[in-house]
Amino acid sequence: MSFSAPDVMSNPRADRVRDVARLATRSGRAKRGLFLAEGPQAVREALALHRERLASSGAPVVESVYATAEFLERSPELAELAEVSAGTRLRLATDEVLAAMADTVSPQGIIAVCHLPGNTLEEVLAGTPRLVAVMCRVQDPGNAGTILRAADAAGADAVILTEGSVDIHNPKAVRSTVGSIFHLPIVSGVPFADLAAALRGAGLAVLAADGYGDTDLDALQDDSAARRLAGAAGEPDAGVVLLEAPTAWLFGNEAQGLDRQELAAADRRVAVPLYGVAESLNVGTAATVCLYASARAQRRA
Amino acid sequence: MSFSAPDVMSNPRADRVRDVARLATRSGRAKRGLFLAEGPQAVREALALHRERLASSGAPVVESVYATAEFLERSPELAELAEVSAGTRLRLATDEVLAAMADTVSPQGIIAVCHLPGNTLEEVLAGTPRLVAVMCRVQDPGNAGTILRAADAAGADAVILTEGSVDIHNPKAVRSTVGSIFHLPIVSGVPFADLAAALRGAGLAVLAADGYGDTDLDALQDDSAARRLAGAAGEPDAGVVLLEAPTAWLFGNEAQGLDRQELAAADRRVAVPLYGVAESLNVGTAATVCLYASARAQRRA
Repeated sequence: MSFSAPDVMSNPRADRVRDVARLATRSGRAKRGLFLAEGPQAVREALALHRERLASSGAPVVESVYATAEFLERSPELAELAEVSAGTRLRLATDEVLAAMADTVSPQGIIAVCHLPGNTLEEVLAGTPRLVAVMCRVQDPGNAGTILRAADAAGADAVILTEGSVDIHNPKAVRSTVGSIFHLPIVSGVPFADLAAALRGAGLAVLAADGYGDTDLDALQDDSAARRLAGAAGEPDAGVVLLEAPTAWLFGNEAQGLDRQELAAADRRVAVPLYGVAESLNVGTAATVCLYASARAQRRA
Repeated sequence: MSFSAPDVMSNPRADRVRDVARLATRSGRAKRGLFLAEGPQAVREALALHRERLASSGAPVVESVYATAEFLERSPELAELAEVSAGTRLRLATDEVLAAMADTVSPQGIIAVCHLPGNTLEEVLAGTPRLVAVMCRVQDPGNAGTILRAADAAGADAVILTEGSVDIHNPKAVRSTVGSIFHLPIVSGVPFADLAAALRGAGLAVLAADGYGDTDLDALQDDSAARRLAGAAGEPDAGVVLLEAPTAWLFGNEAQGLDRQELAAADRRVAVPLYGVAESLNVGTAATVCLYASARAQRRA
């Protein structure tokens, strides 16, 4: 790969630079259908998914990549990945231009402008998912990132964010997902009204993670382990929650938890047991415990 | 409770205000043996522990409380708690003074100056702990707070931070513990060299949480559940890790994980399984899953 000198973007006040910088705002992202991935790891994951999508003739993921010459010299594998990923525009830029484009103080020499995913709820549910994480009005970008990353680690099939949740494609949230934003389908801005019915229609039990819930997560895990070790000894009673069954977990707003409507829509309210003095768990921590409990039960069943 | 006008601290440049503000620095805390708890929830937990300690003739927890008159009017129960907790100096201050004392932009009307805990490793281990979380050079205050909060929720008996870890009594870390900093013994600045031997001497198995570990956490959980459901069918083989046995977990630095010395000192390297595409877990998330797995196995045994 070679670049002639005029190819290096060096004017931080250029229109294109401002266009990219506007992707730090929700309206900027919505208007152009694009978002920013900053730094080597996020860009690598974006390009990997992009290449996979192109191979399966899916929609492109990366619109363009901006990097400094110094960065590409240090990380030739990323330059190669971008080059191999046909259709990716790789542009050289100065540090100053990258800083003007990016939300972080130091984007570490590379950023990618990516297409917002076009997943719909219908598509995601048509794929017969077995584990889905639903964020109900989660507000903090770091929490949303933690939940998405935990969902990815637990092998969830999709993440859904209801109306009123933080925009998980804002730069801070994207950073906190450490690449997981490119690992599984995400559907944002879903109205809650008909969501639970749609989840159930797709064969998913709807469990609300609720500190005041009347069902103890550890009891569900015990039941699941007992069923497994006893072998398939007949059908469980109707109404019993099977942790190994396909499940959608609802996780609530960090200050208020799940609201009445959200709780009422769930099949069961499940509490993560608190063994110590802590009065509550952070929503990201609770989500991690719940999603791992389901993943374990499902994979052991 | 009544305060005459001269009792209201109103000079943000007063010596006492600067003394409190200096507790935002590690050297300031070390020099005076004090740290800051900011906001209603942290102060409430500090006072609750303080009262409990005074009742058991233990060392005081709270050195002094500063609050605005507006705050105390809105939250009379905290004024009462401070008053009931004999020995606590409750001083009225203006918003400006509180802002000058606190690390946060808005301390929400109340802060407490607290004594650093004087726990020693020997004391903590003499109490025959069953579950201990060890942070090995964890650097981020938010991660340290998450791990402490998860340890609290899982009912751990103590948290240990090795030399080179973040100071968990810095204001950002204290905030991120959401009160858990007052819920269980914390020992900081412990040299790693003899720690594992000391933990084993106290009857604790030492498990390293390590993404590259050769032991799968889910397999340990399966074994534990099988033992429980089968009843106490004889002694397990020597060298088998029993998740239900007293355990100290080692959690590593967020960038490098556990180093060679730390890994070598552990009885076993245990990986949290990654079921999805995620390459790794955040250390706070991994710690949550590990501590909950132990808590569950121990309480079910």
